[in-house]
Amino acid sequence: MKKISHTSSSKIVLLVIDGVGGLPHLETHKTELESAKKPNLNHIARESLCGLIDPVSPGITPGSGPGHLALFGYDPIKYNIGRGVLEALGIDLELKPKDIAARGNFCTIDDKGVITDRRAGRISTEKNADLCRVLNEIAISEGRILVTPVKEHRFVLTLRGEDLSSELTDSDPQQMGLAPKKIEALSPQARRTAEIANEFVSQARGLLRSRVANIPSANMVIMRGFSQRPDIPSLPEIYKLKPAAIAVYPMYRGLARLVGMEVLLAGDNIADQLESLQQHYKDYDFFFIHFKSTDSRGEDGDFDAKVHAIEELDNALPTLLNLNPDVLIVTGDHSTPANLAMHSWHPVPFMLRSKWCFPDNVTEFSEKACLAGGMGRFPAVEIMPLAMANALKLDKFGA
Amino acid sequence: MKKISHTSSSKIVLLVIDGVGGLPHLETHKTELESAKKPNLNHIARESLCGLIDPVSPGITPGSGPGHLALFGYDPIKYNIGRGVLEALGIDLELKPKDIAARGNFCTIDDKGVITDRRAGRISTEKNADLCRVLNEIAISEGRILVTPVKEHRFVLTLRGEDLSSELTDSDPQQMGLAPKKIEALSPQARRTAEIANEFVSQARGLLRSRVANIPSANMVIMRGFSQRPDIPSLPEIYKLKPAAIAVYPMYRGLARLVGMEVLLAGDNIADQLESLQQHYKDYDFFFIHFKSTDSRGEDGDFDAKVHAIEELDNALPTLLNLNPDVLIVTGDHSTPANLAMHSWHPVPFMLRSKWCFPDNVTEFSEKACLAGGMGRFPAVEIMPLAMANALKLDKFGA
Repeated sequence: MKKISHTSSSKIVLLVIDGVGGLPHLETHKTELESAKKPNLNHIARESLCGLIDPVSPGITPGSGPGHLALFGYDPIKYNIGRGVLEALGIDLELKPKDIAARGNFCTIDDKGVITDRRAGRISTEKNADLCRVLNEIAISEGRILVTPVKEHRFVLTLRGEDLSSELTDSDPQQMGLAPKKIEALSPQARRTAEIANEFVSQARGLLRSRVANIPSANMVIMRGFSQRPDIPSLPEIYKLKPAAIAVYPMYRGLARLVGMEVLLAGDNIADQLESLQQHYKDYDFFFIHFKSTDSRGEDGDFDAKVHAIEELDNALPTLLNLNPDVLIVTGDHSTPANLAMHSWHPVPFMLRSKWCFPDNVTEFSEKACLAGGMGRFPAVEIMPLAMANALKLDKFGA
Repeated sequence: MKKISHTSSSKIVLLVIDGVGGLPHLETHKTELESAKKPNLNHIARESLCGLIDPVSPGITPGSGPGHLALFGYDPIKYNIGRGVLEALGIDLELKPKDIAARGNFCTIDDKGVITDRRAGRISTEKNADLCRVLNEIAISEGRILVTPVKEHRFVLTLRGEDLSSELTDSDPQQMGLAPKKIEALSPQARRTAEIANEFVSQARGLLRSRVANIPSANMVIMRGFSQRPDIPSLPEIYKLKPAAIAVYPMYRGLARLVGMEVLLAGDNIADQLESLQQHYKDYDFFFIHFKSTDSRGEDGDFDAKVHAIEELDNALPTLLNLNPDVLIVTGDHSTPANLAMHSWHPVPFMLRSKWCFPDNVTEFSEKACLAGGMGRFPAVEIMPLAMANALKLDKFGA
C-alpha cells in the first residue's frame, strides 16, 4: 500500500457505531437496527456499496482493540494490542517502547483472600488518585514502578527498566469468589518481570491494608493485560493520510493515537462530535468518528435503549451529510446484540458511499439488508484499501 | 496443483474481455454491459456458474500484468512482472534470465531540458526503427546494450552482462513539464547498473541531437520499469496443460509466453481470433483468447464505443459456441469504467460454463447480475483450479 498510495484533497470519514450489529428481538423478530427509525442511515444505504464485515474472522468475537485495528486496515491477529497498553494510551500516558503496561483494578478481598468485589465498590476517581499516590511509593530494585489512576477503580501499572518482558499471566481471575492468582512467567525471559510484578502486588496489598490507605473496600489490586507497545506502522506512513480521531472514550482515542491519528477535542455526545468534525474538516483528510452508546446499551442488555442510541445517532447525521465527504463509511467494530448483552462474533453491517462506489440494491442499513450488498460478506481489513480506492488516492498496481 | 492435475482430452477456453467491468451511466444508470445487446453472452450466463472476481484484492486497481497473472492462477503479489520485461516479451524479444529490460519512450524536451511531449509526437514505427539503429551504436564497457523498436515512440532497452540488477528507479517522470530524472540504484548491488543506464541515456541524448538522428521531435529518451524475467512455473508444469494464446496486442502475447503458452497467429479482430481458435482447436487443451477493445474504449472514456465493442464481441461468439468447449470461462482482467476513463478496482463479472458447473439463477452477463451468482465475489486466482475441476482434469486431494 505504501508504494501505491498518494496524497490528494479528497476526504474520507469513517463513522464507527460501536457494537451496532444485533440479533432479532425475541418477540418482534427485528434487530436493533431494524427496529430503529433511521431515515438518514437508510438514505446513505441507498447510495452506498453495502456488505457485512467480519472484524477478525467468522466465529471470533473481537475486543475493542482488534475490532478497531481491523477497521484501520491492520491484521488484528498480527497486531495484538494488550489491555494494559490500550488503557495507558487512553489516558495520554506516554509509554516508552520497552515499558510494560498492565491494567489494574482496586478490589475487595475477604479474610480468606477471596475477591468479593472486583471493582472495590466503584470507588471515586479522587480516592483512586489518593491510592495511586500511595502505591507510587513502592520501590523495587532494578525497575521503576509507575501507578497512574484512570477512572473509578481502574489504574495503569507501568514497569520501566532493562530486559523486561510482557509474557506474563494475569493475577485477575476475572470472577468473584476466587483469590487473585500469582503472576506467572510465560517464557524464561519473563521470570524477572514476573517477580517484579508479584512483588508490586505484595507490597500494594501491604500498603492498602495499612493506615496510609484506609479505604476498606479497596484492600487489594488485581492485574491483567501485561503488554508492550506494538511496533505498528502508522496510517500516515502507509496511506500518506493526515488522519484525525473524534472519540469520547479514552481507549478509542488511545487506539487512534497508536496508529498515528491526531485526537481532536469534542464534547461528549455525537452532536458535539460532529460539530468538531465540521470545525476541523479542512485540516485533515481522514476522520475516525467513534460512537459508543450503542455498545454500552447492548452490553447492558437493554434492547430499547440500544434502538434509541441508534436513533440519536441518526438524528445527528445531517451535520455530517452536509459536509458530503468524498468517501463516507459507516460500520461497527463488532456486534453487541442486546439479547446476548456482550460483544459477539456476528458480522457487522457496512456501507461505503462515494461517487465511484457502484451502489447496489440495498435500501436499508441493517444486518439482513447489507448481506445482499455488493460487497457480500468480507474481512474488515479490506475496508481501508477500498476507502483509499474510492477516494482516488491509490495508483494502479503493476504495469 | 502439480500433484493432482492430469492430462485429458477435455478443452478449456478462457475468454478475457479486457476492462469489461464498468460503472452505471450517469443518465441511464446502466453499465456498459447492461447497455449492450449481447444475446450470446446472456445465453452463456444462463447455463453458467457466475460471480464477481477481485483480480488482486478489493480496492486494488490492477495493471494488465497482475490482472492476467491472477486469471492464469498466479498470486499477482508474489509474481510481479516489470514493465520492461512485459514489453520485451510482447515483441518476441528473447530475454536471458539475467538480462535487464526497460521500457523506453522517445520524447521531446525543450531547451531547458523539460519534457514537452512524452511520445515524441508519436513518431512512425519506421522512424523509431531508424533511431534504434543509431542507439544500438552505443557502447559501454562491461555491458552489452540492445535497443529494440516496438511501435510508434516505444522501444525496449536490454542490458546484458554479469552482476546486473534491476533495482533501479525510472527516469520517466510520467508527466510533461518536468525534466527526465536521473536513474538511481535502489540497492548497493544496483549501483553499477544505474551508472550503465545513465550512461546510455546520456549517450542517447547526444546521438539524438546530432545529425545522425535528425528527427527534432525525438530528441531524448525516458526509461521506466527496469526488470528481470521472474522465475515463474509454467502452466504445463503446474496443470499438465498444453496451452495456446490468441491475442492481438504484444503485451498479452508476452504474458502468455511467460507462463508457457504457445502464441497462435491470428488476424487483428475477434472474428479472426475465433477463426484461429477453430483452426487450432484439436492441437491444444487450453486456449486464452484476449479481446482488447473494451479496455481501449473504456480508457478513452467513450461509453457508447465500449458498449459497441461488447456487441462486436457478442456477434462473433457463435464460432466459439459451435466448438462447445468442455469448459468456457468469460471474464475480464479488471474493470475499465468509461466514466473513470482508466483501469479501476471494481470487481469483474465472471461466468464458467461446463457440463458440471451447477448453473445458478443468473440470466444476464453483467456486474449486478453476476453478484447474485453461485460464486459470489471471489479472488481471480481461484479460477484456474475451478476450470481444471470442471474439465475433470483434477484428482481428489487426500485419501
